[in-house]
Amino acid sequence: MPQFDRLHVVLAATRNPLNIGAAARAMSNFAFPRLRLVNPYEPAFREARSAVGASKLLASSEVYASLAEAVADCTLVIGTTAVRHRDLHHPLRRLEIGARLIRKHLASSRVALLFGSEKRGLSNEDLSHCHWLMRIPTCEENISMNLGQAVAVCLYEIVREAKAAAQPEKRKLATAGEVERITGILLEALLASGYLTRRRVNDSEDRIRRLVRRLNLPAGDTDAWLGMLRQIVWKLRSEKFPVS
Amino acid sequence: MPQFDRLHVVLAATRNPLNIGAAARAMSNFAFPRLRLVNPYEPAFREARSAVGASKLLASSEVYASLAEAVADCTLVIGTTAVRHRDLHHPLRRLEIGARLIRKHLASSRVALLFGSEKRGLSNEDLSHCHWLMRIPTCEENISMNLGQAVAVCLYEIVREAKAAAQPEKRKLATAGEVERITGILLEALLASGYLTRRRVNDSEDRIRRLVRRLNLPAGDTDAWLGMLRQIVWKLRSEKFPVS
Repeated sequence: MPQFDRLHVVLAATRNPLNIGAAARAMSNFAFPRLRLVNPYEPAFREARSAVGASKLLASSEVYASLAEAVADCTLVIGTTAVRHRDLHHPLRRLEIGARLIRKHLASSRVALLFGSEKRGLSNEDLSHCHWLMRIPTCEENISMNLGQAVAVCLYEIVREAKAAAQPEKRKLATAGEVERITGILLEALLASGYLTRRRVNDSEDRIRRLVRRLNLPAGDTDAWLGMLRQIVWKLRSEKFPVS
Repeated sequence: MPQFDRLHVVLAATRNPLNIGAAARAMSNFAFPRLRLVNPYEPAFREARSAVGASKLLASSEVYASLAEAVADCTLVIGTTAVRHRDLHHPLRRLEIGARLIRKHLASSRVALLFGSEKRGLSNEDLSHCHWLMRIPTCEENISMNLGQAVAVCLYEIVREAKAAAQPEKRKLATAGEVERITGILLEALLASGYLTRRRVNDSEDRIRRLVRRLNLPAGDTDAWLGMLRQIVWKLRSEKFPVS
């Protein structure tokens, strides 16, 4: 069982306090309580507004003057980078693989996970403290993630559970627009039939929509349903019914 | 092969243009180009500053007056929610499982992935348009994620490659012969430095070899280590040391 309080998220020279707050919020969402900051640019970072639910975490964060001090008690130091071939001195692992190694390590020892500044990422000196580097599989056209989002994605992958059972799903389904049209005509029919009264229709519309949605209408059946319902509505309206 | 341009990220009643920008940036990072907005609160959202690299995506985003219109051409509509037991009318799937169903669906049809407003999430009326709901496995103490971070994590899971995660490690290590050469020169250095004495070398050789072995030396680094150690040995031997 990995111990998440053994993971230290280390933000090196982060400039924007909102990004520190966003990182703290993601840590709080995924239950990683330990934040370390190296030379945060803005001393007011502890009041970061984007840290919903993470004020305790921010209050207990630790500030260091150098990266060496911030990672000194960790036995595995990992740098995050967007760049693919920046540094041939370090193995570069995709997040999916790196996170698994981090989980293993956390079972017994402390890990530091480093994020660089918004503009330049980690410096070469920062990288020299790292055992290896990790990258999020972003696309070539825009590889560089927002800091708070990068922290969220990395932590998510570390807590992620690989236990998904396939659910076969092969039918071609009606579009949401078709479902909505059927719902609309069904509502007309229910009104015209007296099943629903005009004054109660607002309460019922959502319920009816869910009923139709749960049918998982096959794409090929929608015309038939629409035709049947239209005919019913037409018939209902052309008859004289007692007022309900 | 899933077609990522068949996925429509739909933001319902998002209030903060920075969050729209953050969602757009994450979409750009993971190569999902289609953004739809239902009643965005702030008309200036297209200039969102946090949308680094995503201005084209924001410019081509589509604005709708109702959720029904925004999802009309999709055959699968999925709502995201932080709450665990909010709505018994819909199946609720963990992200790991839901993302796989989305990938399958994208191979042939359009999917709408809905995110609600920052404060209240998706409304009951919004939810009635959904086939099922998906939740990110956040911890009980702080289940509610920032909108931009939630979008990033969901899209990451959809592009995530299970194959990549299963890949064995490929770090190339030094051969036993190289490890032995380094061990030999290190022993010389330890002798020349007085750390080991000639008569005790047999006892120590195995221990030193094991120490070097446990370094897991990368293949590319052996020459550098051999060079450093040779220089040290040369320097130690060229000095006059007192006989121990």
